[in-house]
Amino acid sequence: MVTKGNVFDPNCPTRVILDRIGDKWTVLVVLLLRDGPLRFTELRDGIGRVAPKVLTQTLRRMERDGLVSREVFAEIPPRVVYTLTPMGASLIEPISVLTDWAETHMPAISKAQTQYDAV
Amino acid sequence: MVTKGNVFDPNCPTRVILDRIGDKWTVLVVLLLRDGPLRFTELRDGIGRVAPKVLTQTLRRMERDGLVSREVFAEIPPRVVYTLTPMGASLIEPISVLTDWAETHMPAISKAQTQYDAV
Repeated sequence: MVTKGNVFDPNCPTRVILDRIGDKWTVLVVLLLRDGPLRFTELRDGIGRVAPKVLTQTLRRMERDGLVSREVFAEIPPRVVYTLTPMGASLIEPISVLTDWAETHMPAISKAQTQYDAV
Repeated sequence: MVTKGNVFDPNCPTRVILDRIGDKWTVLVVLLLRDGPLRFTELRDGIGRVAPKVLTQTLRRMERDGLVSREVFAEIPPRVVYTLTPMGASLIEPISVLTDWAETHMPAISKAQTQYDAV
């Protein structure tokens, strides 16, 4: 039984997982669910400008990966609520660090791009 | 002048940057260059199973974003060497945290997927 992945092994699923958790929609869902469960429409409005189909796919993948749980309440209309699992919650810290980096370095990256394109 | 990005603003380039730095090829290049400059073929062999075209595109984007510098030495044949810029080096820490998370949780994610698919 494998106890840990290896990102430098092309056959290891770690690479796929890495792409998944580094995806901007996954990142935004984790950050939004940090403060508690949300409904689909709340996630959609919180992210802003995301195609419902893309958000649905993101949430389904996250559910399959064990990062998010989906609960359906038998109301009329049915209420569907998404919550971070403990494993999903353990992503908050690494994802916050990455997002902070991106927000902090955004101006420097934009400047680098302008310089590169000017050559 | 904008001093910091905001990942929750759909118009902010931070989202694009986030996708870029969360991409598995970018992650692997940063981790490989952690210990010093490398040539294209060394990066390709270090990553394993990456299409040369994809690696070229990744490196060009990273150069444009100011994360990697490309130096050409006038030898025969010319030697091209890639190095992390100081901004690229500042990604080592956040990327290592994310990769560690992926490697550590790979078995649990695989298990979650198997359970999800069995339903």
